[in-house]
Amino acid sequence: MDMDTVIDAARLRRFMERAYRAEGFSGDEAAQIADVLMQADLFGIESHGAQRMMYYHRNIASGSVAIGAQPEVLRETPVSALMDGHFAMGQLTARRAMGLAIEKAKKSGVGMVAVRNSSHYGIAGYYTLMAEREGLASFSMTNTGPIMTPTFGREMMLGTNPLAFCMPADPVPFWFDASTTVVTLGKVEVYAKRGKPMPEGWTIDADGRTCTDAQRMNRSILAGEPGGVLPLGGEGETHSGHKGYGLALMVEALTGVLAQGLMAPEMCGAHGDHTSHFFLAFDPGLFGDAQAIRAQMSRYLAMLRASAPAPGQARIYTHGEKAFEAQALRLREGVPVEANTLRELDEIAAELGIGSV
Amino acid sequence: MDMDTVIDAARLRRFMERAYRAEGFSGDEAAQIADVLMQADLFGIESHGAQRMMYYHRNIASGSVAIGAQPEVLRETPVSALMDGHFAMGQLTARRAMGLAIEKAKKSGVGMVAVRNSSHYGIAGYYTLMAEREGLASFSMTNTGPIMTPTFGREMMLGTNPLAFCMPADPVPFWFDASTTVVTLGKVEVYAKRGKPMPEGWTIDADGRTCTDAQRMNRSILAGEPGGVLPLGGEGETHSGHKGYGLALMVEALTGVLAQGLMAPEMCGAHGDHTSHFFLAFDPGLFGDAQAIRAQMSRYLAMLRASAPAPGQARIYTHGEKAFEAQALRLREGVPVEANTLRELDEIAAELGIGSV
Repeated sequence: MDMDTVIDAARLRRFMERAYRAEGFSGDEAAQIADVLMQADLFGIESHGAQRMMYYHRNIASGSVAIGAQPEVLRETPVSALMDGHFAMGQLTARRAMGLAIEKAKKSGVGMVAVRNSSHYGIAGYYTLMAEREGLASFSMTNTGPIMTPTFGREMMLGTNPLAFCMPADPVPFWFDASTTVVTLGKVEVYAKRGKPMPEGWTIDADGRTCTDAQRMNRSILAGEPGGVLPLGGEGETHSGHKGYGLALMVEALTGVLAQGLMAPEMCGAHGDHTSHFFLAFDPGLFGDAQAIRAQMSRYLAMLRASAPAPGQARIYTHGEKAFEAQALRLREGVPVEANTLRELDEIAAELGIGSV
Repeated sequence: MDMDTVIDAARLRRFMERAYRAEGFSGDEAAQIADVLMQADLFGIESHGAQRMMYYHRNIASGSVAIGAQPEVLRETPVSALMDGHFAMGQLTARRAMGLAIEKAKKSGVGMVAVRNSSHYGIAGYYTLMAEREGLASFSMTNTGPIMTPTFGREMMLGTNPLAFCMPADPVPFWFDASTTVVTLGKVEVYAKRGKPMPEGWTIDADGRTCTDAQRMNRSILAGEPGGVLPLGGEGETHSGHKGYGLALMVEALTGVLAQGLMAPEMCGAHGDHTSHFFLAFDPGLFGDAQAIRAQMSRYLAMLRASAPAPGQARIYTHGEKAFEAQALRLREGVPVEANTLRELDEIAAELGIGSV
């Protein structure tokens, strides 16, 4: 198997900005898109960083992402807004939407923004960090194209449908960002690129049998064939797969349905070109002294980290800790980029006529 | 094994009301508590109906639930409130809190209410139905005493921490109510009462090994010994147990932390006497025509139900469907009550000097 290449973080960011300017975005837009992608790579979420650039490149080429489109606010109250992304790059629309939710939360205590006609927006949790920097708690969710089979089903009727939530705390926030599937399609792709078999219980094939062949499942999912990724909790109800299915449905209710956009089965492609998002930011200070609440959150996270590990385990982590540790390391020592991904970046550079990474 | 006894729903409700009046509650309070318990029994959630009465009976006797206590609003804005339950019966406090969230959602579009110093409030989803009857979407969450081990841990540091969400739809709403553990403690109790072994992957014992002995695990959990129920997603990270752990932490952040109440490890007993809740209700009409959004939700649920089942499965369900079907059946034909539970109801009746069920 090919080795990862370690690339200086600033250099990778400059490449991303160069690429998006060459795609036709303004310098400011290119910097915004790169910031979302870099956050994923710095946090060690390799499936959603540079690895996603070829997918975006193709979407821009096909016109399913519209260069120069401006997201529009269709409806607004002091606590809410409905936006139409007009198929702009998801990162640009989502940053605008969470920015609006933050603005409302600062004035009214809470802000909810639903968005339709957007596109793949990167890691859901990026946007919750925008709120966190303002001392706010927040949610970020998106629907995606269909990849998840419902409990007892074999057609892909729901998306990866990630749910992110962040609550300010020290030394790092509680930063939770998880798909409602057992694993993301990004993870299946990474296994497929590496030629590694997947654990049982991640996906079922067209016959409803558990399948560990990542390349086969990646192909069949992208082709929209029956079978797909299982919900969090796995197959059937024994280990509560119906809960993961329900969480995905909740995310779809708050995104595609609430924003009156497309729902997973109506989208083309597994990632979903015309996704909907939902953002909710609120001020913990509504409920008491914000610093005291932050201190209580920090105290609880510390209790969890100090609790006894299971035999053979070194310690307990809280969500966000590993991501911020990875970021510190990668800012210092560089970002490991997988060989297949590096080839894709070179291909993009050649097609756009820009210097490679 | 003993057979279930089928009891007329109205008769069971009258028994509950009689019992809570005899415990010292007003007629109105007794009716409110009975309504929450009956909803669980009618929906077929046997762990949270009559089965819970002995637990409440003991809490009232020990004084950990305070008869006559009045929940108090400590802080309020047009979109939020913080309440102190003053250890009143959880159902009474939670109904007041969701009522307040609904009132705010009707005036301001959204209402968020955090509650501390409450007690076990029954099924989380009961309260979302209060909002659903007003055409609102809503969340209901509670922390509980510690029963869940964090990923890679072996101490019970988190509660069952259920998350309920409801979105209006026809013919039945999307009604999701799930613990963030693989299974609830109620389910372990039901297996223990029936003397049935549990499936692997629900609980781990003090040595961190999967344990199927429901009676042993029920005892050790109630005694607060190491080991406990696994998060949704199971042991370790392979099937994303860290997601269930994170969802539980999210619920704790929004309940115990936000309301500045006790957190799971600070509570006595597995159910938790001094729980905190969080309610959020909002008007879908903020984002567009409420009827159109309701119709889109209904259409998506219908698509899911009509999708192809896995081999050997009859059909796909959406969340809430089975509950409303069970309710129609049980209102017509009565509520099956397990033999052990029936003995407990007789014991309660004898102690309170009231007629048995």
